[in-house]
Amino acid sequence: MEQQGAMGPVAPHAYSQQSASYVIGADIGGTNLRLALADGAGRIVSRWSGSTVGAGDAQAVIRMMREGVDQLLSDTTLPLESVSAIAAGAPGITNAESGVVIATSYLMGWRQVPLRQMLESEFGVPASVDNDVNLAALGEHNAGAAEGVDDFVFLAVGTGIGAGIVINGKLHRGTIWAAGEIGYMLVPGASEAPVEPGQPGGLEGVVGGEGIKALWQSRWSSALSPLSRDANATQIFDRALEGDPLAQQVLQLAGRTLAYAIYNTWLILNSPLFVLGGSLGVHPALVDAVRVVLEERRGRIQTNILPSALGADAQLVGAIFLALRTANRKLAQAVD
Amino acid sequence: MEQQGAMGPVAPHAYSQQSASYVIGADIGGTNLRLALADGAGRIVSRWSGSTVGAGDAQAVIRMMREGVDQLLSDTTLPLESVSAIAAGAPGITNAESGVVIATSYLMGWRQVPLRQMLESEFGVPASVDNDVNLAALGEHNAGAAEGVDDFVFLAVGTGIGAGIVINGKLHRGTIWAAGEIGYMLVPGASEAPVEPGQPGGLEGVVGGEGIKALWQSRWSSALSPLSRDANATQIFDRALEGDPLAQQVLQLAGRTLAYAIYNTWLILNSPLFVLGGSLGVHPALVDAVRVVLEERRGRIQTNILPSALGADAQLVGAIFLALRTANRKLAQAVD
Repeated sequence: MEQQGAMGPVAPHAYSQQSASYVIGADIGGTNLRLALADGAGRIVSRWSGSTVGAGDAQAVIRMMREGVDQLLSDTTLPLESVSAIAAGAPGITNAESGVVIATSYLMGWRQVPLRQMLESEFGVPASVDNDVNLAALGEHNAGAAEGVDDFVFLAVGTGIGAGIVINGKLHRGTIWAAGEIGYMLVPGASEAPVEPGQPGGLEGVVGGEGIKALWQSRWSSALSPLSRDANATQIFDRALEGDPLAQQVLQLAGRTLAYAIYNTWLILNSPLFVLGGSLGVHPALVDAVRVVLEERRGRIQTNILPSALGADAQLVGAIFLALRTANRKLAQAVD
Repeated sequence: MEQQGAMGPVAPHAYSQQSASYVIGADIGGTNLRLALADGAGRIVSRWSGSTVGAGDAQAVIRMMREGVDQLLSDTTLPLESVSAIAAGAPGITNAESGVVIATSYLMGWRQVPLRQMLESEFGVPASVDNDVNLAALGEHNAGAAEGVDDFVFLAVGTGIGAGIVINGKLHRGTIWAAGEIGYMLVPGASEAPVEPGQPGGLEGVVGGEGIKALWQSRWSSALSPLSRDANATQIFDRALEGDPLAQQVLQLAGRTLAYAIYNTWLILNSPLFVLGGSLGVHPALVDAVRVVLEERRGRIQTNILPSALGADAQLVGAIFLALRTANRKLAQAVD
């Protein structure tokens, strides 16, 4: 019953289901490209990474991926024919059906990039693409903090903030593929000024990495904290755990504001679990600060807050699971 | 293949599918109980209403419904056997699967009321219940402003504020049946104070009927407006349309705050349509004020704002469609 056409372009070289027992997962970021070769059970066999700084053009990223995949195959002495599918997470709004990256932030500057088609042309295997935060949610759902939970929200908190929303076991992407872009949420304490696409949103201005650094710098003096004025958000949160009062102020404001965004999202969705990921989202100081604020409202909100189990690998693991589904040619029926 | 047991308690009297061509829809509110008798196509044949003020106890409401149904049948000279199902919307968090009203606001004070079972016992026909705002969304979806639109949010704005969320043609109710309780949303300008169940939420304090009256009174003086200090929200909005500057100030604050709640909800869901209902939500002055604020953010938000097409009948019409589904014994498969 399955038709090859449903998968998009047919792989130009013949590959047999018997030998094709590996997949490639890719996490395309504004600073790094990370690849993993995984077996048919999703276990990572080998990894590769490279810097995308200054090389954000889609063709350049495809060339880097070629280099990385060749290296992975060489390292494992596997032929390209052993790879049955590839899946990539892109840092922007992505049409998972057509495989087109609609828009990324200014770091990459992509607009309407037919990434799936480019991957299929380059590697000659079925490919799939999705938004990176959605893939992180998929990773946590299959092999992380949300295993066995069919309704949850994955929150990526780093430079930017985004949500991957899973309802009834499926990613909710929205009619224009931008569902979960909560970095722009308007909560008390966030700027109300309208922002254009590509600019950081109101919530990101308080809870994102740059917003936290800016707040730290605006309040910092050498008399108030031994930590440098140029500290980054992780260093500030580390310092807060050690009892630094200024760092704790900054942490508590970030935690309160993030908790408000979670509360608002919960009111709409009633998700019983929020998984905090991203470089800042997994920080134990931030997770605790969020929990304290939500505890004040436990008469209303009933949800669990857990840090990501996969950490920096969440997107990559999600890409591997998407690639496995793609290899099984189930994409057309259940793309998430 | 269909089993009677799947419907819950079996009707104690025999009724034939041939003669049972009518249904009863009920809209239970804190001030009024409204009933409608409708034919198999959902057309209202006859209506009845009564006051629930001071008679909010569930048994008392059931007795009123009995009185109303008897009157409807007497008016139309139809026997009870011609009624094949009944459905009711309750003003609170409702488990549509078990048919239990979990909690209503202080106006009714219901807790864990087995409303579906009570209706089936009283009327001897299959019954269904749901939250009233969810039923209003169902009404707009079947015969109102959202006809043919499978992703939208219905916003009821009156004394309280709530949302009925439709995703892929189905109501999203949340794992504890409280999805869409956005009257508690935290937006700039709303109170951040935690509130207990039953108390008005932060958003309601600015955009709900009582919040609007309170703001009006706090700014009012006879020199500033000829409208009475005791005006209600609808009168204030009417006056704003006539150019009264003080009324326009109050309208604009309410419109901005409601627009922020819509914007936040849109970021999460990407719904292409918001239908504004409830006694205040349908007011053209408020609809316009919301549109003006969202227009400032059109670089990001892409959605339509429409007033309810069914107005005060939205819940009742939704109850009729739910009753029709119940009559068709499809409840177990697709309860929304």
